Amino acid sequence: MIKLYACLGSGNCFKPWLVMHQLGQPFELNLIDVLKGEQKSPGYLEINPLGVVPYLETETGLGIGESNAMLWYLAEGSHLIPEDRTERAEAMQWMFFEQAKLEPFISPARFFTTILPEQKQARASDIAIWQDAAESGLFRLEAHLADRDYMLFSGYSIADIAFFGYVHVLEEAGLSMIDYPAIHRWVDAVSETKGFRPLKELGQSEKKAA
Amino acid sequence: MIKLYACLGSGNCFKPWLVMHQLGQPFELNLIDVLKGEQKSPGYLEINPLGVVPYLETETGLGIGESNAMLWYLAEGSHLIPEDRTERAEAMQWMFFEQAKLEPFISPARFFTTILPEQKQARASDIAIWQDAAESGLFRLEAHLADRDYMLFSGYSIADIAFFGYVHVLEEAGLSMIDYPAIHRWVDAVSETKGFRPLKELGQSEKKAA
Repeated sequence: MIKLYACLGSGNCFKPWLVMHQLGQPFELNLIDVLKGEQKSPGYLEINPLGVVPYLETETGLGIGESNAMLWYLAEGSHLIPEDRTERAEAMQWMFFEQAKLEPFISPARFFTTILPEQKQARASDIAIWQDAAESGLFRLEAHLADRDYMLFSGYSIADIAFFGYVHVLEEAGLSMIDYPAIHRWVDAVSETKGFRPLKELGQSEKKAA
Repeated sequence: MIKLYACLGSGNCFKPWLVMHQLGQPFELNLIDVLKGEQKSPGYLEINPLGVVPYLETETGLGIGESNAMLWYLAEGSHLIPEDRTERAEAMQWMFFEQAKLEPFISPARFFTTILPEQKQARASDIAIWQDAAESGLFRLEAHLADRDYMLFSGYSIADIAFFGYVHVLEEAGLSMIDYPAIHRWVDAVSETKGFRPLKELGQSEKKAA
């Protein structure tokens, strides 16, 4: 069975978890408590020497890092990845954009604002820099979503899941959804797709096996 | 004809340029002088509203940003992308890793060390931070390449081209190739692949059409 190593609350860990639920793909969830440093424990380093989550282990023993690479692996051949060459290129481009221009900024701003708020004041100037950088990427995303329902015209896809991971929790990074009406509408639309489950349910209804 | 908008010296611009040469794909090269700010000129913003290079425009008018997304688009169906699902996942994972853990650090360290050296002293502390971060990624790459010729066991692929863009010029970022013998050997091997052309030739042998 496919094994997913993930921690609670992480947008990157949420992505492969959500896509497996939406595809009806059985998997085993293994929770790693990163606030306790479990990702650097000898046991976990034996599984993933990089000491990070998410990490996916397939039935054949292949280990895959990088959340967006997991989405391509898990959803290839399903309705969540278009067959058309042009749309595949668009999905790929947006998924690289997400990891380069949004995740590196929303993720740490959110971490020190909401997940470890006791450090919020000490990191205030960093948080402001991350928020500014995130706004540039969000501005671009808002413009893209202004005239469409999902990232691709053909419909809901892994490109939506890639963005949804961190974008739907942008307020936890101290940003405001009011500034992004098209993104807000899209977040609601994604939340209503078939088989959708929210981030807060990750690890709740599963102990070891989903 | 496919159009590539690129600037001289950029590792990201080099990637699609190299893959088209190696695949014998005719294209039109349009040089954008980013040191003069041409990427923000009204004419270029009409082509690519993001105001960045590289940017690829296909025969059908599709515009693709993100260098690694261009590699997937251009090389799909060729010997530079494996068919095997496992190897495709590995290539994808490494290409996201490259954009997340190497390019964001080697690129600015190199820019302020070699391309705009007059700012080297003023940016010394930033450069040191970028170099440290780059070393973490390079350490991981070195370990991966220790027991293989290319990124994938099946042979030379777009995963190599993705890394080669910035890794082969790591000394221009103030890092030393002596610290990375496996990477050094791999750089030499990539340089000897069929149809290879070095970064310094970008824009040299072409005016408008390759």
